[in-house]
Amino acid sequence: MKLLEERILSDGKIYEGNVLKVDSFLNHQLDVKLLSEIGAELKRLYGNCGITKILTIEASGIGVGCMVAQFFDCPLLFAKKTKTINIKGDVYHSCVESFTHQCVYDVIVSKDFLKSEDTVLIVDDFLAKGNALNGLIDIVNQSGARLAGCGIAIEKAFQGGGDALRQKGIRVESMAIIEQMDSGTGEIIFGTRN
Amino acid sequence: MKLLEERILSDGKIYEGNVLKVDSFLNHQLDVKLLSEIGAELKRLYGNCGITKILTIEASGIGVGCMVAQFFDCPLLFAKKTKTINIKGDVYHSCVESFTHQCVYDVIVSKDFLKSEDTVLIVDDFLAKGNALNGLIDIVNQSGARLAGCGIAIEKAFQGGGDALRQKGIRVESMAIIEQMDSGTGEIIFGTRN
Repeated sequence: MKLLEERILSDGKIYEGNVLKVDSFLNHQLDVKLLSEIGAELKRLYGNCGITKILTIEASGIGVGCMVAQFFDCPLLFAKKTKTINIKGDVYHSCVESFTHQCVYDVIVSKDFLKSEDTVLIVDDFLAKGNALNGLIDIVNQSGARLAGCGIAIEKAFQGGGDALRQKGIRVESMAIIEQMDSGTGEIIFGTRN
Repeated sequence: MKLLEERILSDGKIYEGNVLKVDSFLNHQLDVKLLSEIGAELKRLYGNCGITKILTIEASGIGVGCMVAQFFDCPLLFAKKTKTINIKGDVYHSCVESFTHQCVYDVIVSKDFLKSEDTVLIVDDFLAKGNALNGLIDIVNQSGARLAGCGIAIEKAFQGGGDALRQKGIRVESMAIIEQMDSGTGEIIFGTRN
């Protein structure tokens, strides 16, 4: 999506350790118009898949997830992160390793809101190694729902998570795919898939 | 807002300890159409205030915040909760006590995104004792921005946070105000303010 690539080039900041900071429009301050454009594009790509639920993970997935759910006229469901071992109530849960926060947390979704008759589009702001996404896919599989695919704002392809999922036959559509980025020069090279 | 009151009556669940569970439409699964109606109503109430920024707090404020920001054609900024003492970068921060999670955490907002020339509408899903809201107001005051007021989905008036803010002269508009609720009978009594 040209609009997102341009925004990354103008407002994104690259730091050492493969960090791309886009907190001026994607995950601290949110440009809701841009998120709405992502929703429109995912509707174009997944519009004929019979999506009944958008699934994301707190916190920064919620913004893009809401705007996507508007286009599909269905609810947004967000998985909660918890470090507590006590899982309350009747929930699906999966373990996710966080590189940002250097910990493992449980990701939970209430069984009330994800059923075998659902068709799910998983949405998130970032895809790097794919840990969060794998946790969400695990939860969809537990529920027996059908996974239509994933819709991602920014994929850092050089970290391999997206291609690993595609190789497993999972449809992954990313609005901007970064093949390379250089914290020294600030250069970003975008690519395509599919 | 009649629509929200009706939804609370049909889908909300009351538990002991003043807990109102609305996770089927407000803070786990999100009914984005309902959130959009809240956005429309807040636009009606605050539309002439020159709002330049919607401010909320992660995680469940982000959904309603996004939908509100659409109506005001401005960005959503969400404060991050952190338990780390190391405050990175140039941020405003405030301490907030959480009754749900029984801890005190730092709430941070980057100074890059909140300036003295901003006019801010604070949005959140719940208002009970007002701890989160007081933290956000503290941050707005630190920034020198003008606070237009607060827009809340559900106010539990019997916990006093909303009226304490109104007594300080802060405008608080809540889409549903619960005066009393009874976990035994399931009865909920709504009220009004202003």
